[in-house]
Amino acid sequence: MLKQERAAITRNQIVKGAAEMFDRAGYERASLAEIVDLSGITKGALYFHFKSKDDLASVVIEEQHAISMNAVQAILSSGAPALEQLAMLCYEMARQMIEDPIVRAGIRLTLEMSADGGPRKPYADWIVSCERVACAAIDEGDVVDTVVPAELGRFIVGAFTGVQLVSNVLTGRDDLYERIDQMLTLLLPGIMPPRRRHKIDRIRAARWTPPAAD
Amino acid sequence: MLKQERAAITRNQIVKGAAEMFDRAGYERASLAEIVDLSGITKGALYFHFKSKDDLASVVIEEQHAISMNAVQAILSSGAPALEQLAMLCYEMARQMIEDPIVRAGIRLTLEMSADGGPRKPYADWIVSCERVACAAIDEGDVVDTVVPAELGRFIVGAFTGVQLVSNVLTGRDDLYERIDQMLTLLLPGIMPPRRRHKIDRIRAARWTPPAAD
Repeated sequence: MLKQERAAITRNQIVKGAAEMFDRAGYERASLAEIVDLSGITKGALYFHFKSKDDLASVVIEEQHAISMNAVQAILSSGAPALEQLAMLCYEMARQMIEDPIVRAGIRLTLEMSADGGPRKPYADWIVSCERVACAAIDEGDVVDTVVPAELGRFIVGAFTGVQLVSNVLTGRDDLYERIDQMLTLLLPGIMPPRRRHKIDRIRAARWTPPAAD
Repeated sequence: MLKQERAAITRNQIVKGAAEMFDRAGYERASLAEIVDLSGITKGALYFHFKSKDDLASVVIEEQHAISMNAVQAILSSGAPALEQLAMLCYEMARQMIEDPIVRAGIRLTLEMSADGGPRKPYADWIVSCERVACAAIDEGDVVDTVVPAELGRFIVGAFTGVQLVSNVLTGRDDLYERIDQMLTLLLPGIMPPRRRHKIDRIRAARWTPPAAD
């Protein structure tokens, strides 16, 4: 195995261990010593790849954001009707939080930092994506043209953020899919023209499946 | 002045100083020494009233919850139509976060702890109140009876939580009132029967005014 490949594998192990730690304990209580244990690497290897806990947290947030944005891009170029894309986005973000420890850790770190007013980029990127979907849904005639795409995009991101937060507090995200379905059921009739509302059940059932890993 | 009165005033000063500290720095970075400075009291006085930082944080959260729930009770017994009460609840929670440092600190502490899955009570109490308002709105014919009150109550609390969180991250809550208006504008048409939708502007404009302090 090439030296670079080994280094990449080690780095990956560290990021996974760090994600597990941040997900479980949060930033303040996470300890580098425990991350070393969880990763099954040496302290020297950790400091070879990362300068500090802060550095590790930034990498976890970046990887989570990359994972999430890859799915967003794939859904936005799926060719599905825009409102189905919106449902896919919500369900896929929920699935990632439930199933992927790096995503869960990134979301927790972002949430912890949000009390201090940052980082803005994850929210801003996601709002822009939802705004694009809202524009497309208006073009397709599935959303009434009195809805302002930027306002709908912002509201979807805010509502989703809070719905998953409350689901996490009250049920450890056990009821997250159900709560997203209720969000769509309550929201869609108000933004769709009456003649398109027969599509609501189809939109609620729309899911995007990530391509199988090699 | 009676000894008890002086003690109550001192305790109040400490809680205010602690709220200022927690609001600015969060739980982990808050220091008891700085809380002593901010409160203008002695370290001895602080330890006479509170055992620990944890104890202080619990008291700030309790006071915030009491302030918020007092307003909720007043709004729920205001006699206003239920959907106007719902708008009043959202705007009053927003106003408290913007204007009251104890509320802001309590919300920040609750948010920080929510990553660890607790405390549940503030969310649960608020959901029950919103569910009661949703029931009343259905009884009054302003919300269609296919809406499940528990689901609407839960969604309102989730959506509000996230809308205020994203507003805080992106604008320091500068656009919070505007974002609440957009939430109501997007949500109301979908839950109201067509013959009642002429009331939407009136509902959006509904505000509750706290009684003036003595």
